[in-house]
Amino acid sequence: MSDRAAQPRVTQGGDAPPPLAGPLPPLTSLDPAGSFAGRHIGPRPADTAAMLEVVGHPSLDALVDACVPEGVRDREPLALPPAQGEAAVLALLRERAAANEVFTSMIGLGYHGTVTPPVIQRTVLENPAWYTAYTPYQPEISQGRLEALINFQTTVADLTGLPVAGASMLDEATAAAEAMTLVRRAGRAKAEAVFVVDADTLPQTLGVLQTRAEPLGIRLHVADLTDGWPTDLPEAGAFGVLLSYPGASGAVRDHRALAAAAHEAGASVVVAADLLALTLLEAPGEWGADVACGTTQRFGVPMGYGGPHAGYLSVREGLARQLPGRLVGVSVDADGDVAYRLALQTREQHIRREKATSNICTAQVLLAVMAGAYAVYHGPEGLAAIAARVHRSATTLAGWLRSGGLELVHDRFFDTIEVRVPGRAREVLAAAAQRRINLRPVDADTVAVACDETTTPAILRAVAASFGIAADDASLDDGGLAGWGDDGALPPELRRRTPFLTHPVFSAHRSETAMLRYLRSLSDKDLALDRTMIPLGSCTMKLNAAAEMAAITWPEFADLHPFVPAEQARGYARLIEELCAGLAEITGYASVSVQPNAGSQGEFAGLLAIRGYHRSRGEDERDVCLIPSSAHGTNAASAVMAGMRVVVVACDEAGNVDLAELRSKVAQHAGRLAALMITYPSTHGVFETDIQDICAAVHDAGGQVYVDGANLNAMVGLARPGRFGSDVSHLNLHKTFCIPHGGGGPGVGPVAVREHLVPFLPGHPVVDTGASGPVVSAAPWGSAGILPISWAYLRLMGPDGLTRATEHAILAANYLAARLREHYPVLYTGTNGLVAHECILDIRPLTRATGVTNDDIAKRLIDFGFHAPTMSFPVAGTLMVEPTESEDKAELDRFVEAMVAIRGEIEKVATGEYDRTDNPLRNAPHTLAMVAGEWDRPYPRSTAVHPVPRLKDRGYLSPVRRIDQAYGDRNLVCSCPPPEAFADPEPQEVAGRTAGAPDDLGTVADVVGARN
Amino acid sequence: MSDRAAQPRVTQGGDAPPPLAGPLPPLTSLDPAGSFAGRHIGPRPADTAAMLEVVGHPSLDALVDACVPEGVRDREPLALPPAQGEAAVLALLRERAAANEVFTSMIGLGYHGTVTPPVIQRTVLENPAWYTAYTPYQPEISQGRLEALINFQTTVADLTGLPVAGASMLDEATAAAEAMTLVRRAGRAKAEAVFVVDADTLPQTLGVLQTRAEPLGIRLHVADLTDGWPTDLPEAGAFGVLLSYPGASGAVRDHRALAAAAHEAGASVVVAADLLALTLLEAPGEWGADVACGTTQRFGVPMGYGGPHAGYLSVREGLARQLPGRLVGVSVDADGDVAYRLALQTREQHIRREKATSNICTAQVLLAVMAGAYAVYHGPEGLAAIAARVHRSATTLAGWLRSGGLELVHDRFFDTIEVRVPGRAREVLAAAAQRRINLRPVDADTVAVACDETTTPAILRAVAASFGIAADDASLDDGGLAGWGDDGALPPELRRRTPFLTHPVFSAHRSETAMLRYLRSLSDKDLALDRTMIPLGSCTMKLNAAAEMAAITWPEFADLHPFVPAEQARGYARLIEELCAGLAEITGYASVSVQPNAGSQGEFAGLLAIRGYHRSRGEDERDVCLIPSSAHGTNAASAVMAGMRVVVVACDEAGNVDLAELRSKVAQHAGRLAALMITYPSTHGVFETDIQDICAAVHDAGGQVYVDGANLNAMVGLARPGRFGSDVSHLNLHKTFCIPHGGGGPGVGPVAVREHLVPFLPGHPVVDTGASGPVVSAAPWGSAGILPISWAYLRLMGPDGLTRATEHAILAANYLAARLREHYPVLYTGTNGLVAHECILDIRPLTRATGVTNDDIAKRLIDFGFHAPTMSFPVAGTLMVEPTESEDKAELDRFVEAMVAIRGEIEKVATGEYDRTDNPLRNAPHTLAMVAGEWDRPYPRSTAVHPVPRLKDRGYLSPVRRIDQAYGDRNLVCSCPPPEAFADPEPQEVAGRTAGAPDDLGTVADVVGARN
Repeated sequence: MSDRAAQPRVTQGGDAPPPLAGPLPPLTSLDPAGSFAGRHIGPRPADTAAMLEVVGHPSLDALVDACVPEGVRDREPLALPPAQGEAAVLALLRERAAANEVFTSMIGLGYHGTVTPPVIQRTVLENPAWYTAYTPYQPEISQGRLEALINFQTTVADLTGLPVAGASMLDEATAAAEAMTLVRRAGRAKAEAVFVVDADTLPQTLGVLQTRAEPLGIRLHVADLTDGWPTDLPEAGAFGVLLSYPGASGAVRDHRALAAAAHEAGASVVVAADLLALTLLEAPGEWGADVACGTTQRFGVPMGYGGPHAGYLSVREGLARQLPGRLVGVSVDADGDVAYRLALQTREQHIRREKATSNICTAQVLLAVMAGAYAVYHGPEGLAAIAARVHRSATTLAGWLRSGGLELVHDRFFDTIEVRVPGRAREVLAAAAQRRINLRPVDADTVAVACDETTTPAILRAVAASFGIAADDASLDDGGLAGWGDDGALPPELRRRTPFLTHPVFSAHRSETAMLRYLRSLSDKDLALDRTMIPLGSCTMKLNAAAEMAAITWPEFADLHPFVPAEQARGYARLIEELCAGLAEITGYASVSVQPNAGSQGEFAGLLAIRGYHRSRGEDERDVCLIPSSAHGTNAASAVMAGMRVVVVACDEAGNVDLAELRSKVAQHAGRLAALMITYPSTHGVFETDIQDICAAVHDAGGQVYVDGANLNAMVGLARPGRFGSDVSHLNLHKTFCIPHGGGGPGVGPVAVREHLVPFLPGHPVVDTGASGPVVSAAPWGSAGILPISWAYLRLMGPDGLTRATEHAILAANYLAARLREHYPVLYTGTNGLVAHECILDIRPLTRATGVTNDDIAKRLIDFGFHAPTMSFPVAGTLMVEPTESEDKAELDRFVEAMVAIRGEIEKVATGEYDRTDNPLRNAPHTLAMVAGEWDRPYPRSTAVHPVPRLKDRGYLSPVRRIDQAYGDRNLVCSCPPPEAFADPEPQEVAGRTAGAPDDLGTVADVVGARN
Repeated sequence: MSDRAAQPRVTQGGDAPPPLAGPLPPLTSLDPAGSFAGRHIGPRPADTAAMLEVVGHPSLDALVDACVPEGVRDREPLALPPAQGEAAVLALLRERAAANEVFTSMIGLGYHGTVTPPVIQRTVLENPAWYTAYTPYQPEISQGRLEALINFQTTVADLTGLPVAGASMLDEATAAAEAMTLVRRAGRAKAEAVFVVDADTLPQTLGVLQTRAEPLGIRLHVADLTDGWPTDLPEAGAFGVLLSYPGASGAVRDHRALAAAAHEAGASVVVAADLLALTLLEAPGEWGADVACGTTQRFGVPMGYGGPHAGYLSVREGLARQLPGRLVGVSVDADGDVAYRLALQTREQHIRREKATSNICTAQVLLAVMAGAYAVYHGPEGLAAIAARVHRSATTLAGWLRSGGLELVHDRFFDTIEVRVPGRAREVLAAAAQRRINLRPVDADTVAVACDETTTPAILRAVAASFGIAADDASLDDGGLAGWGDDGALPPELRRRTPFLTHPVFSAHRSETAMLRYLRSLSDKDLALDRTMIPLGSCTMKLNAAAEMAAITWPEFADLHPFVPAEQARGYARLIEELCAGLAEITGYASVSVQPNAGSQGEFAGLLAIRGYHRSRGEDERDVCLIPSSAHGTNAASAVMAGMRVVVVACDEAGNVDLAELRSKVAQHAGRLAALMITYPSTHGVFETDIQDICAAVHDAGGQVYVDGANLNAMVGLARPGRFGSDVSHLNLHKTFCIPHGGGGPGVGPVAVREHLVPFLPGHPVVDTGASGPVVSAAPWGSAGILPISWAYLRLMGPDGLTRATEHAILAANYLAARLREHYPVLYTGTNGLVAHECILDIRPLTRATGVTNDDIAKRLIDFGFHAPTMSFPVAGTLMVEPTESEDKAELDRFVEAMVAIRGEIEKVATGEYDRTDNPLRNAPHTLAMVAGEWDRPYPRSTAVHPVPRLKDRGYLSPVRRIDQAYGDRNLVCSCPPPEAFADPEPQEVAGRTAGAPDDLGTVADVVGARN
């Protein structure tokens, strides 16, 4: 009936033909295992052979031998557990999960139970369209997540009463630290380097502030501020103060006089505030805060044993350009239509390098999207109702306890009370634990209880019973509630009077159906790994497998407070230990800490370990950090933050570190040499052959070597930095180890060190991490909630699979280099003309000849359905391509097809067949509105949207035309634009609406390649 | 910085403004509950008020009073558990789940452990883009799932060696029953009505065959066929035979001689075959099968305590037009490009009514998509490797047991062995249960063990130990395997020689990345509830909430075999009991059975209950079933299947049953009257006022009343059929109770009866269901695996929420009727000019005047981003619109906007401003290729794709132009078309490729409204 069966079987790209009659296929084991590596790695055996032929090597082994210098090559097999199948690994993860115990945690201290709306969990957190996206540096294909982030920014700005909020920080503690340095540089230069911190601050925030302050020469002045501005400050005063609202104790204080006094004394006011409380309490921006910071965890993001969550930072007018991290702003596209993009990128560390004031670049996009969606879904009245319920839970409990004769430490609170139980604290905690409830010990005589969105009457009764008090059921009736409800625990003078979330988006999506469609419509605007290869050099956009992602939403992993007693987190402890052991084995180091919750934090922690080491040996003067000119900008920024002086080492023409110059710089700074930071393989995508000599030169001068692990995906199973000369590295679990990029976070940046640096790994003020170095993140294990992803990856791949993945990553990059070389020059290569796991295409000659830029190529790739490679990093005017092992040959070939077709279009510009300004490259990306509208371009519409035949079936068009970066920076708008902005496409109208200060920083082209 | 804050807050569509300073908002409870109904129901309070104003009633209560006849109105509140929040309901579901015990089930009998590839679980089963889609009656917006289904069909056709496979059946047992009736009607008319069934057949298949055969006068002849064709048949022989391959016992027999003998005797051969075994065993189509049937469960679909799974049916050349259920075929669109659509719809029961030969219409699309995807992901070599591993597990175990001195009942097997343990069966089963393994008791002396994809060496060792035999670990080494592996258990003469899955699609998506993108690209072609309202009259496309869906993939629900001992399924038992109690309370019946796994099966079960009841009273002659002319075609088909004669009752001009004619028909058939089947509210979308009189008239004549529950969404909380005169109803959990439509299944059709019919509810041959009526589905509790969805809906909504949902469903329909009435006449209304929960728009006058058809409107709605309403049901030339309670006012208004705009376009055709054949309506849907290509139409491109301004931001275009239904039926191709079909858009080429028999049934326009 069909002639399909008669067709010859297509064997290219397939495995062996199916076994028919004859002996059964051989089995090496009856275990249904070992197959995942074949799913993670894109090419089939036949594809691999074809790709090797193009590259000109007979086997993967031969290619690797030719590519990886023998000096760094490590041929000892990885001692890791063997690969297991997906079902088996999920069963193991269920075992680990079962070893955790999910109590009701009323510990507070910045982490609270919350209900993730199921529609947000399913449609965002469990949806590859959201979690596999990259940082929105290419704004045209990122409009969905940019809108989601602007919802987040609006939520933060509205609730804190400060007009400009960033697109998320790593956590509350680092946000506070960034706030401290922000007000330091924005404030009076003559102020003393003293930062006042209210004693009622979260312990982990205090810890991170201390870590950050010390290398910068800032002194923390921690004081009880209940009696007003401290009188024991140095004469020049302090540059700022951090207040908490409510305090760590739960106390709600009226800080207005204090804020006025601080301003009077020339100090800026930073307020760490709970966003949920701010729905009922007047916004800090209304009573004097210059900066607000905190976490948005309780906006629907599970506690996850500490993270990841989106921290936040918002500032008053005038400080926007000082904001660290990412900021989404409104701009216009080539038609003058409203469009979003990252604003003010000139502030970013990858541009400012050693002049940077912060090293952060990863945000917590996925979690910020969730928190913003939570605000959209609940809206102002919904959030306030949740807050009211939380508050009434606390007042109800307070009422019961008081009627039982107990005393509270504070009369004014939002959700957390401290209860005096002289000599009985341990007993009360034990009684609560019996009921599977965690309370917080304050001291031997005091217990704290924090209520949250998940608190029920039954839980409150159990808490009361733990205090030895039988709760009166009747008081839960309406009448009873009225009695307990409004007892002044929320000070009337602090009750909120400022409206918030008044933008229509916070009222339009209140049914689940509407929310589902809104979230889908946003993600449909974006390109993520579920639709296309994202060949971003240095970003390692590989498969984030469904099996790896499955466990992170299990309650046993998602619902643990980071400060639960250790016996409730045995599953986590084992998983973290196994993961760290695996990472240590892979990198050749002695020990690993997972506390740093971004690559940048890993760098910082690693440099602090080096600093601590030198100081422990009495070599305090070692403060010079050598950094090659090709390095990630983050490296220099981290070094500055760690109190080091950056000395740049030049690269030679081949892109390698200039060994002679290095030796000379080492000699010049010998006695003060602290460290060399170097990326391997290099940021130029090449295995440098001198790396051992380089390491030796630094060591000989008493310095330490920091190998940046950004490019570890080229080394797993083939080379171990801890063995070829490095002392410390950070890894990027979101690159090499499959944690998805989440649209620009979460990242996880574990720091790995050799034995002598182990004592300097991060400690924690609340939880014993087994180390005693400076605390760098709020949570003891950083973003513990997503570590099951990398754990699963190691188990699924096993040692052989991991090594094979590396080999395929190298093969894929060399395949693309070989296929594209005749069309675009490949800028740097190493031994035997090979690149490592990425390659740089030099666009500059074409730009000079035709005016076509790498930006034009990037945007034109969108018309082919592709995400652009990394632009202008590490070399301006180039594209850096990293295909990873997960792309199959068909997708690589489609990319080649696109790049070759684009090269043909460039040629038409060169020959004059295409106009130099009105051509498919310059006009890219093309939208449906363009082709459906008037058309007077010198090429047909079909060329615009169907440049090659296979695209006839394309499912994606850019929702906007090319975005004007400069316009948005000149007219800074960083919260939801009013609906009229969309109704009227006239650019002049938009301009009229958003007049703002001219941008004295100038504008920046898209730049990617930041540490992510 | 932004002027956003200055904007007036948009209050329309929002709730109350946020509480600011002042007393805290009142709380009725501290429980975080009661909020879900507000998420399920679309309109906000302000919207409801505005909609009521349009409808002209002051309140929901007043509207309902005016709409629902007092005679059927039931004002007693629903006695159901109160509403709880999503987190609380999920916690309750976890309790139910924890009451189940997940053993390793090696029971076999048609259900096997399988690994759902995580990428398929996440991207299909957990993805609203797949599970909220409707049946692909509108093929243009269904190309993704149609392609997925054609992959399924190709898989079945290839593996069974029969060229045409349908798009899935409800389960293996009903597929076998359909095969029986298929060969009955296709065979020699003079053959005796005897169907031979091999004794080695699954017990549930035998049960369903018996149920289906009896009312049709078919006699089953069950015989041991090991010795050949039975010699004790009546002289005229039998019309067919069912063989199993392998048998229920696991035995693999060579049926070739038997098949030849059957053919010789004029009987058709039906083979129930295990698709996984068929990767190693020669295809039934190669050795004489005319029809193959079975299940695809073990292709990655969890056992789910019995379902849902996709059954399959495939047939030899010449029988395609006899296939029951849905069949996807290849056709071409208006450009001649290949496109898919449902083929041969003339065969469908909703068209043939009492002439129908089957009542099934719901397929198991979501599960068929999963099974097809499993085949795509593993490919031929992967499937064969899985089969080989399964087989080697069985041979390994057989080897161990034999060396331990045990004897097997059969020497030839694929995955299942029967072991002789004289007098010890109970002991062996208990020993296995100790190890958390379920084996199958055959009799006191025999135990069966079925191996599957999840069987590991550790499990095999535990099984051997349960038999008292210590397995030799060494035999698991490669050497050992070689020893045990190929012992002839698979008969060499039956080893497969025919290639399968040779189409490129089964080799192209082998990495997870490629598979993820393929699945996304398919779903992106389709419109589902996650992108648009689907206002299909009679289909009730309401929200399928994420919280409702969450539990179905939990292992405690997903991984239970339907025949596990009752003590392992206590959680299921409780959940089913609670669900049935809730449904009984809502409908006013005494008892409910969830066994029917589709609405059609519920009808059949209900009619069988009536039949059983009459027979139990000695009134065997009662066989007349009255059915109004407006009824679903399924009603008549079910009645015929239940052995009844259909007598049609006409409707009056108002669309109501003609009471006079009814009384006359009742009188005419009084003594033979079995039943009246009637839908309430009527299929015309109206609450008829005569329903009680109608019921009384039937009862007075000794008949039973069957109220079809298709429109129950208009009655929940307002009226109960079991109280206003009905004796039996089936419900559609996939309409009223939120089970998603899955793109065309699964459906669940529980049957609910009054007390006197309870004894006639479905029983089961393996599991005690507490009833003793005829078995209608393979599994005792039907599609148990998805019952948590409806259970959760009842708990989340509570009695008040459910009632409020009904009121909003009625409001929404009347709002649309009121808004659209001036543009399109509303065909039928009830009391006070109101409709029930849906309304019929009469397009016929416009068609007569302008030539514009309801088809044109349906296709043009795609250009507006909408799914079409139900077309030509229950009245040809009309559109039936059912918005449901879940759509918010904004979406309803967008639909009105589209329909009004379309009315304007029709007007332009009427006035001649638009050409009668070349206009936006006739050319709809418009594709990107159209607007990007040459354009010589008398309207601009922007009118084609951006007919109203809000669509400027649209994210969806139809991937194909309007599809030629007739072409595909004339040129029937029902498996994957070769790639060249897509490469060449010339229609004549396509035609040349697929020449086939002319279609003597003629062609059929899109018709929807089937029982789904």
